Amino acid sequence: MISSSSNNRIKRLVALGKKAKFRTEEGVFLVEGEKMLREAPREWIREIYFSETFFNKRKEFIQKIVRESVNIMEKELLADEVFQKVSDTQTPQGVLGVLSMPQYTWEEYMANWSSMQSKAPLLLLLEDLQDPGNLGTILRAGEGAGVSGIVMTRNTVDLFNPKTIRSTMGSIYRMPFFVTQDLGNTIELLKENDICVYAAHLDDSVNYDVPDYTRPTAFLIGNEGNGLNRATADKATQYVKIPMEGQVESLNGAVATAILIYEAARQRRQ
Amino acid sequence: MISSSSNNRIKRLVALGKKAKFRTEEGVFLVEGEKMLREAPREWIREIYFSETFFNKRKEFIQKIVRESVNIMEKELLADEVFQKVSDTQTPQGVLGVLSMPQYTWEEYMANWSSMQSKAPLLLLLEDLQDPGNLGTILRAGEGAGVSGIVMTRNTVDLFNPKTIRSTMGSIYRMPFFVTQDLGNTIELLKENDICVYAAHLDDSVNYDVPDYTRPTAFLIGNEGNGLNRATADKATQYVKIPMEGQVESLNGAVATAILIYEAARQRRQ
Repeated sequence: MISSSSNNRIKRLVALGKKAKFRTEEGVFLVEGEKMLREAPREWIREIYFSETFFNKRKEFIQKIVRESVNIMEKELLADEVFQKVSDTQTPQGVLGVLSMPQYTWEEYMANWSSMQSKAPLLLLLEDLQDPGNLGTILRAGEGAGVSGIVMTRNTVDLFNPKTIRSTMGSIYRMPFFVTQDLGNTIELLKENDICVYAAHLDDSVNYDVPDYTRPTAFLIGNEGNGLNRATADKATQYVKIPMEGQVESLNGAVATAILIYEAARQRRQ
Repeated sequence: MISSSSNNRIKRLVALGKKAKFRTEEGVFLVEGEKMLREAPREWIREIYFSETFFNKRKEFIQKIVRESVNIMEKELLADEVFQKVSDTQTPQGVLGVLSMPQYTWEEYMANWSSMQSKAPLLLLLEDLQDPGNLGTILRAGEGAGVSGIVMTRNTVDLFNPKTIRSTMGSIYRMPFFVTQDLGNTIELLKENDICVYAAHLDDSVNYDVPDYTRPTAFLIGNEGNGLNRATADKATQYVKIPMEGQVESLNGAVATAILIYEAARQRRQ
């Protein structure tokens, strides 16, 4: 059992929680809580840490996860107060995993489309989103609405931020994502592949429920504060807007995204 | 200028930010930032506080607000480090108002419906929501979708929590709300007034886009963790569900609410 917060392994876990740089260097991210570990693909799990209190209550859960995780290299008991240090929450459940970051290749993904006869792709393109909770909530709503993949710019908040991971409620395990170096190029590529790109925009646009989203569709979503860059928005097939009553200037980014993708899901159910 | 955090007036502001009890006792709440003050109904503003840095940059803004606020009783400059103490954000803008809490009466509101010929009411009934950000986001999306009023149970998170107020992005000034002592009674009352009450539920329900929301409509939304109480849900006219693909068990509360009310708004535009 580790009983001191100044232990180097504890310092490493704290650093992995705080800094994208360390996560990227090691190619890992942290997940917390029983639900997040229960849903984790077993081959992603590299290390597992648990508090004394949690272990005393849920020994069988830990043993089952460890048994099923073929790539696990480390399991360790932490004193409750040490666990509190590595946790991202105020009242930690007492179990934390270090998981391998998933890798998806855009080329494979694009190649798959031609074979996806049954279902037109539904993509989200996120430009420079900054709120970790919004990004996680978008993954969660995206899975619910049947989104097939998410493309993010490099300046989007880190997907492996603990707050983002928590907000995904497990969708991080199931939603393919890609970081693009050049969103303009990605949009061009999608259009060449007959995918309509709709830019969520406030000006000069049709209501979001007018276009036909049963065709291959991508929604382009801008930054919470500034919206889409003009140059990016101009590459879209069409602008769409969510009409707003009262004096509302814009909606929360996750809310706006959910309204768009659930309209696509609604049309696709008809 | 107040230059010490131990000043009693500063202690009071900190207490008003932290505790619903103090806000209720005084009948006031705090708003922060230029946008929130610009949109505030002038007669609600009782006190205004600003940091030295803000005052040096935006003296005219402060003077204009003070001039227009007929009920203002106090304006005070705070040293920057003192302003940081009373602020709810890590990088405060440097301006904060103490505003009178609005009061809406349910009886007047109900009486108004009969005269609202042009538009069928669209209500939200929130049972025990716990996340301050979600509640604020719901007010904001609600105003955007044309929601006419929000009813909350007593166990719903405090609407005047600074995080909730910030998430409303100003909708707090424009959205009528009511706290009910007995949600079951409220539902019965609404049904007697020919308002259909739809319970957002996961089981045994039709898809949310099937009912006709152009009629007088209320949506009943449950707690983030546990959903609706069975006894409450059973009083609804009908259950509706948001279909989910993948392994998603539920959506974020604000996201689910926005999908429902924007479906109502969509139908009402047709």
